[in-house]
Amino acid sequence: MALPTTRELTDYLHTHIPLSRAMKVEVVSCDGGSVVLRAPLAPNINHRNTVFGGSASALALLAGWTLLHARLAGSGMRVRLVIQEHSMHFRRPLEGAFSAHCELPGGGAWERFLGGYDRKGAGRITLKAVLRCGDVDAAFFEGEYVALDDR
Amino acid sequence: MALPTTRELTDYLHTHIPLSRAMKVEVVSCDGGSVVLRAPLAPNINHRNTVFGGSASALALLAGWTLLHARLAGSGMRVRLVIQEHSMHFRRPLEGAFSAHCELPGGGAWERFLGGYDRKGAGRITLKAVLRCGDVDAAFFEGEYVALDDR
Repeated sequence: MALPTTRELTDYLHTHIPLSRAMKVEVVSCDGGSVVLRAPLAPNINHRNTVFGGSASALALLAGWTLLHARLAGSGMRVRLVIQEHSMHFRRPLEGAFSAHCELPGGGAWERFLGGYDRKGAGRITLKAVLRCGDVDAAFFEGEYVALDDR
Repeated sequence: MALPTTRELTDYLHTHIPLSRAMKVEVVSCDGGSVVLRAPLAPNINHRNTVFGGSASALALLAGWTLLHARLAGSGMRVRLVIQEHSMHFRRPLEGAFSAHCELPGGGAWERFLGGYDRKGAGRITLKAVLRCGDVDAAFFEGEYVALDDR
């Protein structure tokens, strides 16, 4: 099966996770190995006129989720995909439109994720994402996602 | 100075952090030593009809922020209050309206926070929050907040 298009992924998020619509999240690219999501400042602004930390965290979380969702959908797999834990570290404020960049790790992580799902009905994978404002790396996300049997 | 009322705190969040309005966040109680925030499921729902992880994280982050903001405002202090890092661990899905409960830690943490601010222009404090759905503790948050000199 083909990967979903960025338009299909954006529509999926907006339909099923209304907060992503409120945030005006857009899937910019997703090739199955990496994903970029972005959002404008206005709906995500805080009392300091920078990006609200909760919005930054949500965009990063969605980036990892979208990458796994797209790749699993491209394989024709229907799983329940949830986040188990995540962390964020802010190095500097995000002062405008911002983006979340997430790549699938190498070293057999994907194969272990699928293997755990096949053998135990629960596959785990840890993804990292970077939050950028322009070319500046402003915040760092790490999340553990779990794929559960949805049959 | 008196602590802000829950109505004033809710209005402050809705005015300055529009995502809190989209989430329909409400400050339920805040006595300067603890805070409770809540939000309904509908605007925070995900593809599994449970609370979106990004919404849960944002509510917990706001709970800690509101507690510090209220207590500092009650002391007449004007500071720049930001989150430096945070983590979330989800034990189970939040399946309906949810709340975030945060208490100020003891052991001199508040005094060290103020002392760091006074001496170095940067006070740090780590707050924990629990996310509940009904009586069920469903997720756990920890965040490090920093108060910076805003003069």
